[in-house]
Amino acid sequence: MTPISVNAVHTHRFRFSQADVEEFARVTGDNNPLHLDAEYAAQTPFKRPIIHGMLGASIFTKVLGTEFPGYGSVYLKQTLEFLRPMFVDTDYEAVFTVISINSDKHTADIQGELKDLQTGKVTTRGIATLMHREKIQ
Amino acid sequence: MTPISVNAVHTHRFRFSQADVEEFARVTGDNNPLHLDAEYAAQTPFKRPIIHGMLGASIFTKVLGTEFPGYGSVYLKQTLEFLRPMFVDTDYEAVFTVISINSDKHTADIQGELKDLQTGKVTTRGIATLMHREKIQ
Repeated sequence: MTPISVNAVHTHRFRFSQADVEEFARVTGDNNPLHLDAEYAAQTPFKRPIIHGMLGASIFTKVLGTEFPGYGSVYLKQTLEFLRPMFVDTDYEAVFTVISINSDKHTADIQGELKDLQTGKVTTRGIATLMHREKIQ
Repeated sequence: MTPISVNAVHTHRFRFSQADVEEFARVTGDNNPLHLDAEYAAQTPFKRPIIHGMLGASIFTKVLGTEFPGYGSVYLKQTLEFLRPMFVDTDYEAVFTVISINSDKHTADIQGELKDLQTGKVTTRGIATLMHREKIQ
């Protein structure tokens, strides 16, 4: 089990379908029509449904909890800035960069950015703080 | 549609089942065994599976997106501190308090705290920044 190091980068490509949005709405109870109702969304500045910011942010918990640092990671903090709307059927890339490590506490600050692969623009940015006794040293 | 005001408080009680945790793992892809595998979790300081921090945090998107301020809210930022583990089949209360309002931008900072109803201890704390043209003035 190799520990992560400062400046290490991990990337993960993903996309969501409208079915994913509907399932996320069901499990979380967030049925805001901005995400589910095309007619409602057409009246907003976005013109069409946007995915839940927290569904986009779920990429953070997925990647950090299963890939990098990976299984066994304990989530301590997360900041999130929802900079631009995210849409279904669109290719995104999550880029995670280790910002700092506290060896005594086995914690790390990891910045995550979600980028639209076509435009290169960052849609969501945040910093996660995680603990992992083996992978953060 | 009555706008929200500074210091207004909104509460929401909730609990999660292991089935909710499994559905959240499926839709997000976060199958960290800390949340799903009792044998694995028994070897950790938590002794039993804890729910995903982001599943607890999904109460923020649910309540803010559907109740307070409610439908049409656009999520701009969120900070989250996962202070204590959260468990299934446990009663929690989310307490949301409006910290500040920017009338020009139609944005508000709303603090959310998730509390264990039995112990009164805060498990998760964070500040959400939202925009809503009608409800934030």
